[in-house]
Amino acid sequence: MVAEPVARTTSNAALIAELTDMLGDRLSTGRAILDQHGKDESWHPAVPPDAVAFARSTEEVAAIVRRCAAHRVPVVPFGTGTALEGGVAALRGGICIDISHMNEVVRVSPEDLDCTVQAGVTRKQLNEHLRDTGLFFPIDPGADASIGGMTATRASGTNAVRYGTMKDAVLGLTVVTADGSIVRTGTRARKSAAGYDLTRLFVGSEGTLGVITEITLRLFGIPEAISSASCAFPSVRAAVDTVIQTIQMGIPVARIELLDALQVRAVNAYSKLDLIEAPMLLFEFHGTDAGVAEQAELVGAIADEHGGRGFQWATRPEDRNRLWAARHDAFYAALALRPGCRGMPTDVCVPISRLADCIEETRADIDTIGLLTPIVGHVGDGNFHLSILLDPDDAEEVAIAEAAHERLVNRALAMGGTCTGEHGIGYGKIAYLEREQGPAVGLMRTIKAALDPQGLMNPGKVLRS
Amino acid sequence: MVAEPVARTTSNAALIAELTDMLGDRLSTGRAILDQHGKDESWHPAVPPDAVAFARSTEEVAAIVRRCAAHRVPVVPFGTGTALEGGVAALRGGICIDISHMNEVVRVSPEDLDCTVQAGVTRKQLNEHLRDTGLFFPIDPGADASIGGMTATRASGTNAVRYGTMKDAVLGLTVVTADGSIVRTGTRARKSAAGYDLTRLFVGSEGTLGVITEITLRLFGIPEAISSASCAFPSVRAAVDTVIQTIQMGIPVARIELLDALQVRAVNAYSKLDLIEAPMLLFEFHGTDAGVAEQAELVGAIADEHGGRGFQWATRPEDRNRLWAARHDAFYAALALRPGCRGMPTDVCVPISRLADCIEETRADIDTIGLLTPIVGHVGDGNFHLSILLDPDDAEEVAIAEAAHERLVNRALAMGGTCTGEHGIGYGKIAYLEREQGPAVGLMRTIKAALDPQGLMNPGKVLRS
Repeated sequence: MVAEPVARTTSNAALIAELTDMLGDRLSTGRAILDQHGKDESWHPAVPPDAVAFARSTEEVAAIVRRCAAHRVPVVPFGTGTALEGGVAALRGGICIDISHMNEVVRVSPEDLDCTVQAGVTRKQLNEHLRDTGLFFPIDPGADASIGGMTATRASGTNAVRYGTMKDAVLGLTVVTADGSIVRTGTRARKSAAGYDLTRLFVGSEGTLGVITEITLRLFGIPEAISSASCAFPSVRAAVDTVIQTIQMGIPVARIELLDALQVRAVNAYSKLDLIEAPMLLFEFHGTDAGVAEQAELVGAIADEHGGRGFQWATRPEDRNRLWAARHDAFYAALALRPGCRGMPTDVCVPISRLADCIEETRADIDTIGLLTPIVGHVGDGNFHLSILLDPDDAEEVAIAEAAHERLVNRALAMGGTCTGEHGIGYGKIAYLEREQGPAVGLMRTIKAALDPQGLMNPGKVLRS
Repeated sequence: MVAEPVARTTSNAALIAELTDMLGDRLSTGRAILDQHGKDESWHPAVPPDAVAFARSTEEVAAIVRRCAAHRVPVVPFGTGTALEGGVAALRGGICIDISHMNEVVRVSPEDLDCTVQAGVTRKQLNEHLRDTGLFFPIDPGADASIGGMTATRASGTNAVRYGTMKDAVLGLTVVTADGSIVRTGTRARKSAAGYDLTRLFVGSEGTLGVITEITLRLFGIPEAISSASCAFPSVRAAVDTVIQTIQMGIPVARIELLDALQVRAVNAYSKLDLIEAPMLLFEFHGTDAGVAEQAELVGAIADEHGGRGFQWATRPEDRNRLWAARHDAFYAALALRPGCRGMPTDVCVPISRLADCIEETRADIDTIGLLTPIVGHVGDGNFHLSILLDPDDAEEVAIAEAAHERLVNRALAMGGTCTGEHGIGYGKIAYLEREQGPAVGLMRTIKAALDPQGLMNPGKVLRS
């Protein structure tokens, strides 16, 4: 069993004094800083920490964790605060370790297609750094998240259908464990059969087993040719059937994204586009000139069979980027449908054969709840997102949204899916994790208790504490 | 810390009686059966178990493990016995659970490109089963291993450069834990951010955390076109430079295998081929007709730049299969170079930029030891294998080989690599795992102690017990 919940202790003041000695003005207890660090981009209420420590190195993180362990005070890691399930909320108080100043790209090895970064490097910063190497890092959640946060939440994004998720991207980690030790997992080898896969255990552990401070990542060569396409469909099912056939034929498409009609309307308004307001697929193809053309032709033919219309090509970078920037802003576009609202964003992932059923049943369900809810999906993976637009101060709206959310998760689980494809559990989905994983959650709790016996690492996330 | 080693207890006889009641003649204590189950295909000495239980179902495995736990008797899982680091040796005695009768393909979902198999299904059996679906399972270690064993050792093979390893292939598992509980990990969703990645923790745990009884696997569509090529090079470095450039250009080659000159000689003799006896690359390309032709043309040009000669194409299935069958028999071909010998097979994996250095230094080293040692490599991954041919009864030869092996591992570790790319740790590489992973081994021991507090699951493997 996980250790008992930690009560805020009277030694917090002593701890804060020690950390101030160590960090000077990089230890903050200012109200605005605390409030900013207690919340992410979701609707979950803010729960500020008692202090925020801006660490500059792995060794400094280790020293902070050791002080917290000695005082039995919780530790909450913080990257960019762009998570969606309350992962940064300091549910038991304690010290937030902000790693955003740890933003050095430590090493890039173009020959090996890998690099090592400090955890605070963001995905856009990394790609900017790589610009002249001919390489890129493909994983792209909506936000410009930190690589540390993306690792901790097992993030993915639009390129996952071809390039995988953070599970696949990470070769090794430097982690500060609950006792303040510094541990390195993995090597720079592409594959290994050497011992337990600690790297994958920390990827997706959301700060509950340790603080990730450095990450060694796989990179990819920027393809010789890239082209994009968009296509409108008569129904979500027609779009999804196009996706299934594309995947089955082994066409190595880099991105296949679905926007439902409401999301297209939101994107048109927010990003000043004039896409047909119908279920829409966005494609991106990577390869040689000839390869990209062949992929596009094959997919165009498949789309045609399923009633696709307005199949539009974008080969000029500025047109492609405009389309994908609009896709990346989908969440913000959704929010703009109802000024002043918050989004209750959620995601599930199902076997692709059930994806059309799952989206259609979900659309029918949420059309009854009276809250605008656009749908977007990384449909090549069977993953899709809702953003239920609500007033978080309206208890009735929140209750209606939560009930619809629960029906969504139950639907996905009944179809052999998962309660979250990429957002993580945080504290928003703990009950759903239990429903999904059953007895396996007992093993997770055993591991948590073994690696964090005091229960101080981001307590109350992933698992009940 | 891991529990104390388990002494053989006097209750073994009682346990065997209980298991005989449960299993009838599927509980064997016959000498030949015991001997067969105590050894794998390597040079490691046989250590037979006290009895072998041929299980037929997950529930039966659970019942056996519960009886063993009650009597504090070790459990050693056994698939096909084709491992290479002594993983099946019953170092502390106990009950071997042979899962080879659990050989049912439970479900294939062509639309989702996945399937679920019992752990005793072998990779060839699975592909035979899939033959009419247009799908295949790409992971191919040399032997026709069980999927359970491949999962437990994080196996890979020649297709890993394109299709990944067992780490990537497994979507979810059914596992019997040390207390005899049945736990399911993962779902059928392609990706998930739901909780700790228990699936990846069990993949590669070599039976030390539980017994894997069912596996849900990703499958792939059989490509429309497949072609192979072989090419001889003036040096290992020229061959490896060809590989590096191929990978960097993002050419999606399915297989790139290196055979050194001695291995080519062995293959020619064993498989009745007439390949040029020089460092050689074997390629396989998967895709559309046009895509395969384009890949081949690009790689041919790269090989040409590096002095490749005799670039030969094989598009007819019978020619391709002959070439790859010869590659798969490389270990047996090596053994045939010295009739009556055993192989000390080992593998390391390094960043690809160091691969030529690592192979050349290794070749120079082993050329001095007086023992024939062919080299083959999954060079697209930076992974290569030695088979040191020795007389296991000659202590001097064994000592010479072990010293060369240690130098190999040290060389790979110094280059940022791993002590095993795909064979696993077993009991042959425990010291090297410790050298490679350092403090991370402490975390592995903590996890082992938490999930197997009595230390009964395949004791003495991966970690010291």
